[in-house]
Amino acid sequence: MYVGMQATMLSIPDLITKKRDGNALSDEDIQFFLQAVVENIQEAQTGAMLMAIFTKGMVATETMALTKAMKLSGEVLSWPEEWAGLVVDKHSTGGVGDKVSLVLAPALAACGLKVPMISGRGLCHTGGTLDKLGSIPGFNVDQPLQKLRSILAEVGCVIVGQTVSLVPADRILYALRDATSTVESVPLITGSIISKKAAESLNSLVLDVKFGGSAICKDLASAKALGESLVTVGNNLGMNTRAVFTHMSNPIGRCIGNSVEVIESLETLKGNGPSDLMELVSTLGGVLLVMTGKVSSLSEGVRLITECVTGGAALAKFQAMMVAQGVSNENAQSLCSAQADYHRILRRAAHQTELRTHTQGVVMEIDGLVLAEVLHQLGAGRTNAGDPINHSVGAELLVSLGDSVNKGRPWLRIHFESPALTPDQTSRLEGALTLGGSGDKPLRGSLIEDMIPPM
Amino acid sequence: MYVGMQATMLSIPDLITKKRDGNALSDEDIQFFLQAVVENIQEAQTGAMLMAIFTKGMVATETMALTKAMKLSGEVLSWPEEWAGLVVDKHSTGGVGDKVSLVLAPALAACGLKVPMISGRGLCHTGGTLDKLGSIPGFNVDQPLQKLRSILAEVGCVIVGQTVSLVPADRILYALRDATSTVESVPLITGSIISKKAAESLNSLVLDVKFGGSAICKDLASAKALGESLVTVGNNLGMNTRAVFTHMSNPIGRCIGNSVEVIESLETLKGNGPSDLMELVSTLGGVLLVMTGKVSSLSEGVRLITECVTGGAALAKFQAMMVAQGVSNENAQSLCSAQADYHRILRRAAHQTELRTHTQGVVMEIDGLVLAEVLHQLGAGRTNAGDPINHSVGAELLVSLGDSVNKGRPWLRIHFESPALTPDQTSRLEGALTLGGSGDKPLRGSLIEDMIPPM
Repeated sequence: MYVGMQATMLSIPDLITKKRDGNALSDEDIQFFLQAVVENIQEAQTGAMLMAIFTKGMVATETMALTKAMKLSGEVLSWPEEWAGLVVDKHSTGGVGDKVSLVLAPALAACGLKVPMISGRGLCHTGGTLDKLGSIPGFNVDQPLQKLRSILAEVGCVIVGQTVSLVPADRILYALRDATSTVESVPLITGSIISKKAAESLNSLVLDVKFGGSAICKDLASAKALGESLVTVGNNLGMNTRAVFTHMSNPIGRCIGNSVEVIESLETLKGNGPSDLMELVSTLGGVLLVMTGKVSSLSEGVRLITECVTGGAALAKFQAMMVAQGVSNENAQSLCSAQADYHRILRRAAHQTELRTHTQGVVMEIDGLVLAEVLHQLGAGRTNAGDPINHSVGAELLVSLGDSVNKGRPWLRIHFESPALTPDQTSRLEGALTLGGSGDKPLRGSLIEDMIPPM
Repeated sequence: MYVGMQATMLSIPDLITKKRDGNALSDEDIQFFLQAVVENIQEAQTGAMLMAIFTKGMVATETMALTKAMKLSGEVLSWPEEWAGLVVDKHSTGGVGDKVSLVLAPALAACGLKVPMISGRGLCHTGGTLDKLGSIPGFNVDQPLQKLRSILAEVGCVIVGQTVSLVPADRILYALRDATSTVESVPLITGSIISKKAAESLNSLVLDVKFGGSAICKDLASAKALGESLVTVGNNLGMNTRAVFTHMSNPIGRCIGNSVEVIESLETLKGNGPSDLMELVSTLGGVLLVMTGKVSSLSEGVRLITECVTGGAALAKFQAMMVAQGVSNENAQSLCSAQADYHRILRRAAHQTELRTHTQGVVMEIDGLVLAEVLHQLGAGRTNAGDPINHSVGAELLVSLGDSVNKGRPWLRIHFESPALTPDQTSRLEGALTLGGSGDKPLRGSLIEDMIPPM
């Protein structure tokens, strides 16, 4: 019924109609829409456009224009000339027990790179790096830009929250996508991830695109579609961008939660890391080392990262980063010492309970999504942005894939406060463990499935 | 990414996801959504749901549940027992020069029916009945419910605006549909039209579903799809409902605007109406007379309505309605007198200009949509709800379809205030007239194409 009055300029309803009817928006259309999102649009119009984009998709040129317009909706960081080629970051599409950033950022810094990790808080079942760090008393993830630069100069890595001035369009759209059920859209995910990384003015970006039962992308094909879009748009916006496709069904490592994941990260930085976590850290880091020319092959990169992690160089960077971001010298030193009493500094939950196996068998699978959802209900995660969370709530796996276990063997320790576990939650957790017969072996091999471009 | 916390109750994002993925919403889903629309939903969620409904459609049971929930979102009118079977209304999907209501309501009242016409204001190119009546000094379309009943008791017809208490869900959704480009959706149109009529507690409703270049439905097939939905849902909600499908490309009658259409309506009520307008009034009225059992055949109904209009009974009802709704006795009498000087009471625009034919030929077609769009720009219509309009702006056709005209013959008189016509507008208006060769005849026959059910 809308009758356009000025043929030369499309209104917001015209733009919604265009996308609703499956047509491609022009660069100017997208710039106009994004400007309205930040300035004066009716929220219902944003909701309608998000749903139109979700159902009709976008071609590559539209996704590029969207991402570029989002990036330019706010401030764009700049770095000293002498860092040219050295500024890097990693982004993961989200997994259960994913503490890669906490180990990788200091490892890369130890290799001489600059890592301005602007990270997110967790929403729903995927934990957020900022929430994990929030369990360390004094750790401040809100740093002014000036301070961010000086920490990068001194330490080489910093992990902070998004500032108000960076990519305001994403802050608005991200919040509305959750409310409007338009999260799982390749162009919208691409715009959100790449605009923020592009505003960080990175030289190189590696993406950990996860697929499987505990990931946003349930299969490799959908992960590939997303990865292709992310890499194409990232490169288009001037960042050297690569994607690594990794399996995500069993939790990464043995701990899920906030303070328990910080402890596992510190243990990893002390050389005691689980092999799956080490594989992810060394591969993603190795790719970045190749991209920045620090090494000439992936295997060399993997070796260098592994050395930084197991040899203590990354631990020293993590300790320095904690101090630079507000943790007391004494606490930082204590957490990084060989025989750390972690719970002197990190709050331990008031209650622990262990689940035991009901039969004997071989550990075939542990459903990370189920564990994460129950922990979320127990307070480890948030349903709405801004909700408080309980840093001490978490879970520890007491068995590994492939273990042969007897009946009655403790396999999961839950750390909880209030509320306590309900019978329904206990029953769901029990269902997360799959045991096989004595001859069975879990299929699990490498977590790394593929890369763009192949290496 | 949303993880439902309570399996037994769907959240608004869950409902949006359900519709987004093409699944049917249950009655409870729709009731819950509608309640949230009125109470506490985020506007972006309403926008997203509207777009999901637009792109995925609704099955008949969903449209019924939507319409019923909308009806029950506010007050439902009730009428005295002695009016049982007599309370009727007509609804049109909107046309250019459509002044049927102004003639039909008093004609039906003259036949002993009760006609509580709750009408709308115009938006975009279709004029609103309330705006037309707004050109009569004193005519008050905002009447409290009590007064509406007493006018119906005394006069038999009343034309008012929607009250705040009736169908609040529609008021919200209607405003957002325009902004979100989700107007042309069969389930949403059905919900909007039928919920309001059902809240009027009508016994019988006739729908004028228009199709053609100047209508929302561009062809008969889409009009039929809408008409079927309207009739099915209307009957399901307890109203005897029928649809008449009518052509809408040339304007109805000779006048388009507000005060000029009031004048044409008064002339029609004095027996001087154009044949196309009379055909619509007598057919739509005739169908209602059959539905209410006042007559036993459509031809008898058409004859009775025609008699009421040409014989003066309907004019007397219109005069009484004007007085009951606030017009002074003197003005009402003067407007209804045989030799009325209309412009003593209805404002005449400051300027008139006539367009002339550039060649000779036979009048084959007059594009109503073009005329309406230009008049809209000149101030006769509004782009946003609440905008003021200029009642005196309008157009008069000086030729009829099939007329043989010489070059230089005046064919259109434009009444305008400020702004004046631009050269572009003049050129668009000139393009609205199609002349044929001397042997050509316009195809135009009856405006009535079909009915549901057939009569």
